[in-house]
Amino acid sequence: MTMQADTEGSPSGTLVLVDPESGTFSSANPDEPQILVTDLAPTRGDGIFEVADVRAGAPVRLEAHLARFARSAAAMDLPLPDPQTWTCAVLQAVSEFTVRNGDDQPAAVKLVLSRGPEEAERTFGWVYVWPVHSYVGVHADGLAVVLLDRGLRSDVMATSPWLLAGVKTLSYAINRAAAREAARRGADDLVFVTSDGYLLEGHNSTLVVRRGWELVTTPASAGVLPGTAQRELFAQAKEWGFITQEALLTPADLLAADAAWLVSSVRGAAPIRTVDGRAIGWDPERTAQFNEALSVPQR
Amino acid sequence: MTMQADTEGSPSGTLVLVDPESGTFSSANPDEPQILVTDLAPTRGDGIFEVADVRAGAPVRLEAHLARFARSAAAMDLPLPDPQTWTCAVLQAVSEFTVRNGDDQPAAVKLVLSRGPEEAERTFGWVYVWPVHSYVGVHADGLAVVLLDRGLRSDVMATSPWLLAGVKTLSYAINRAAAREAARRGADDLVFVTSDGYLLEGHNSTLVVRRGWELVTTPASAGVLPGTAQRELFAQAKEWGFITQEALLTPADLLAADAAWLVSSVRGAAPIRTVDGRAIGWDPERTAQFNEALSVPQR
Repeated sequence: MTMQADTEGSPSGTLVLVDPESGTFSSANPDEPQILVTDLAPTRGDGIFEVADVRAGAPVRLEAHLARFARSAAAMDLPLPDPQTWTCAVLQAVSEFTVRNGDDQPAAVKLVLSRGPEEAERTFGWVYVWPVHSYVGVHADGLAVVLLDRGLRSDVMATSPWLLAGVKTLSYAINRAAAREAARRGADDLVFVTSDGYLLEGHNSTLVVRRGWELVTTPASAGVLPGTAQRELFAQAKEWGFITQEALLTPADLLAADAAWLVSSVRGAAPIRTVDGRAIGWDPERTAQFNEALSVPQR
Repeated sequence: MTMQADTEGSPSGTLVLVDPESGTFSSANPDEPQILVTDLAPTRGDGIFEVADVRAGAPVRLEAHLARFARSAAAMDLPLPDPQTWTCAVLQAVSEFTVRNGDDQPAAVKLVLSRGPEEAERTFGWVYVWPVHSYVGVHADGLAVVLLDRGLRSDVMATSPWLLAGVKTLSYAINRAAAREAARRGADDLVFVTSDGYLLEGHNSTLVVRRGWELVTTPASAGVLPGTAQRELFAQAKEWGFITQEALLTPADLLAADAAWLVSSVRGAAPIRTVDGRAIGWDPERTAQFNEALSVPQR
């Protein structure tokens, strides 16, 4: 069933503000300012977020995103987000988006929890839904990626938890600077590498490498964000006969792979075509199968 | 001359919003929301900032802060902030603060430049002035600091500029997590250490070590923020007969120092009393002299 949008013109976003302390939320206008200049999100990147896909008027894998949101909160000494409050806030924002834009408009939903205004000790949150475009071109053409030093050893999660490796914080300036560096080098995306030479993840995606009937991703213990879409993909892949595992991979492993993807909620499984200019294994059948399994629109 | 405040009660902040594209600015209410939820400052920590001291109704070392602001902008591929626009915006915000709270109220002024709303390609900025308290207690008692791994090598500025070492970005979640870790260990502050064993800086201050008539700080090339207050202190110290230099220091150097300080604009020269629980050299005369030179109120 496709709902009819009730407005003409380009799709627009919807916003629900969340007061995590009271567990209440309310719709607001995303085109008007909603955040104080003293809030620690804009002044210190001091908060956490999640982004889930929205399809056919519903958020995808919301429970997995909420579980990761809670892990990020714990790592940041933030109060644990109440799943019911955030679920209801997400459903309200998505529902308003669908009423406005129809349920065939691809969209994404972002959940943000800020530490709130400086010294107020009162967290602040919001849920924002916005239209996204199709990634069919990326699935067909593949990504040219470069390998970029992340500067950190593969053991920092254990030795130095205050470095927040593997935590989805609002402090993403490095991820964005790395994406600009990749673009400067003529690439579409990047894979971060530890200072001791192991592959980590993309700047907003999870690395998955195929070796025959084996699918491998970086262990969370190396300081990457456990991928919600990658996890679902691995669960499905086991049913198709794949062996799935987490293991430290090197650049040589990636160059020798039968195929590799950067997997994320909204873009799905985006195949890597070249690494620092060198072609790697290419597997369009698996790309289509993976994205179908992840329900990423193929049209 | 001390101006009379025109309102009773606790001092309150003042805000001037800056449109860097047009070079215009206007006063706004800091108690009302001013930032969009799509702005890249709150969603990605994607912007830069500076904090200057305000004394006797005037910003301190504003030119040095604006020069560093411009260096941060360049490192982040942001348009260079126009010094005249920002100077005028700062003076307006400080002037409004002084009218409201009197010019004997210690205060600080923060300059923020955000990349602006996602995909808008229109930066957004603001200047905020707020009251600060006295740091005389810190100058008298000193700081218990802990050494915390920063995870990065001392050469990353040269090898990996996208890691933004030495850039004053809004992505400060790690700095704040490290400060919480220091508090958990019963300490007042911290000194970051590179993965190859060299001292860096505090989470919002510059390390200065005294060895006889020599004052040493970490070279900017190791990935620290060049300190505006430390730079002024070194200029004065040369006149007193000190040799000043930038050099890589180890934890052993700090433990063997005649004295050491964490220097910042608002707190001034805060002496380090212990490092990981071990007492280091203590020099109250120099602490007083340094803070007098930096014009940090001693009352």
